[in-house]
Amino acid sequence: MTRIALGLQYDGTAFSGWQSQPHRNTVQDRLEDAIEQFAGTRLQTTVAGRTDAGVHALGQVIHLDTELAREPFSWVRGINAFLPPSIALQWAQAVDDGFHARFLAHERMYFYALYTGPHRVPLVHGRAGYLMLPPGQRLDAAAMREAAACLLGEHDFSAFRAAECQAKSPVKTMYDVTVRDHDDWVFLRFRASAFLHHMVRNLMGCLVAVGRGRYPAGWMAEVLASRDRKCAAPTFMPDGLYLADVKYPEAFRIPAADSSASLFHGVFADDCA
Amino acid sequence: MTRIALGLQYDGTAFSGWQSQPHRNTVQDRLEDAIEQFAGTRLQTTVAGRTDAGVHALGQVIHLDTELAREPFSWVRGINAFLPPSIALQWAQAVDDGFHARFLAHERMYFYALYTGPHRVPLVHGRAGYLMLPPGQRLDAAAMREAAACLLGEHDFSAFRAAECQAKSPVKTMYDVTVRDHDDWVFLRFRASAFLHHMVRNLMGCLVAVGRGRYPAGWMAEVLASRDRKCAAPTFMPDGLYLADVKYPEAFRIPAADSSASLFHGVFADDCA
Repeated sequence: MTRIALGLQYDGTAFSGWQSQPHRNTVQDRLEDAIEQFAGTRLQTTVAGRTDAGVHALGQVIHLDTELAREPFSWVRGINAFLPPSIALQWAQAVDDGFHARFLAHERMYFYALYTGPHRVPLVHGRAGYLMLPPGQRLDAAAMREAAACLLGEHDFSAFRAAECQAKSPVKTMYDVTVRDHDDWVFLRFRASAFLHHMVRNLMGCLVAVGRGRYPAGWMAEVLASRDRKCAAPTFMPDGLYLADVKYPEAFRIPAADSSASLFHGVFADDCA
Repeated sequence: MTRIALGLQYDGTAFSGWQSQPHRNTVQDRLEDAIEQFAGTRLQTTVAGRTDAGVHALGQVIHLDTELAREPFSWVRGINAFLPPSIALQWAQAVDDGFHARFLAHERMYFYALYTGPHRVPLVHGRAGYLMLPPGQRLDAAAMREAAACLLGEHDFSAFRAAECQAKSPVKTMYDVTVRDHDDWVFLRFRASAFLHHMVRNLMGCLVAVGRGRYPAGWMAEVLASRDRKCAAPTFMPDGLYLADVKYPEAFRIPAADSSASLFHGVFADDCA
């Protein structure tokens, strides 16, 4: 029996999220179908991050156990042949039995792409969040940066936690929040030990409220300190959200994710950790 | 009777091109349906560039004649409300009766986004051309630039013309071909007085053949001089092709297209003419 780690990307627009469901229109169902066609037997997958409906992945990681002996590139090409265009494996690697895609991940990175022009934009539909602002009006990215600063470090993030969240603890460590603005775009990067259910979308709701001037930057710290979901802004749309990378102990030699084939090519290139 | 010019963007992935067809799955059919719902009467549209199946637009221009008196923003918002997410008007403007979206256009700009990584990439599927190259292998962008230089100026472009092309003359003037490479991407920009049917996709086929080292850069000039379609490479895939902008005499004050809400944000920003 060999444990295999696999890296994959998907466009989540048409799927009901990662997690398998009876109607089967999920990334996990499509992927396990393709693996079954390749391997000739149903294999159980374990995922690093269970993404919501409409959320994308540039650096999702899964593992599975198999008796099948194949070269890594054979796993990638073989399974990709049975996947729809909206899902594709990027790499495969045999790993130590002690590897676990979910429990051993010590850092997750999410990106959010937000477009704020005056009209709907078909070429990024579903792949960017959209906030309609009048011509010439923009989000105050400096205020968003100032608001985000209070999130750094270890905190109880209950104020940004969905009611259905199954995490054992609401205490997580935020390593970095980067806000880049460029014309009518705001690109955000969040790096943390782990994220609660809906946490990035709830953080986005508050950061956008600050960016629009509805609250001062200091309001974010009040929301965080309240530990009360009712104090935060509504959950922001999933369209622009991407699971960008998952980090594991170096000994497992898991490849870093590549976000270049996305709206983010070059956006965070000069300082990506 | 007022003549109205309209600017629009569309994701061409799911459409059989611009031009109206009996099965009605075209951009023109969807747009004229939406205009009819907004205006209460069917209005004939005239387009700047009839894009092929799978080709996108960031700066398409049309005109129509109407008795309806509405503010420009009302045309944009009203028609967009009846369009699918893959098509959206960006601006509307009353123009002089002498304006004609097709005959008065004196310059067209096309972009091509080409990804050359080792694996399929779901997040740009349909919106970028794809050439599978092994890890670490890239197109020779310098050779592509050298090959493209011979295209500048007035030439008979018959070697890059589809058999079905209806243009009166194969003689067009190429103002600029820019080739930008970045990681596994090559982004190209073509500016010309006008383009023949399939001309950019046929040019792409040849430039990619040079970029892969199958022909030396000087081969491009031989193909051009031959005026023979059989000498050129096969027509390249439409997925990464975008009608980016159309230029008219300044007196008409037609707005410049905005390509920022696409894979091209920032790519040609520093030197866009």
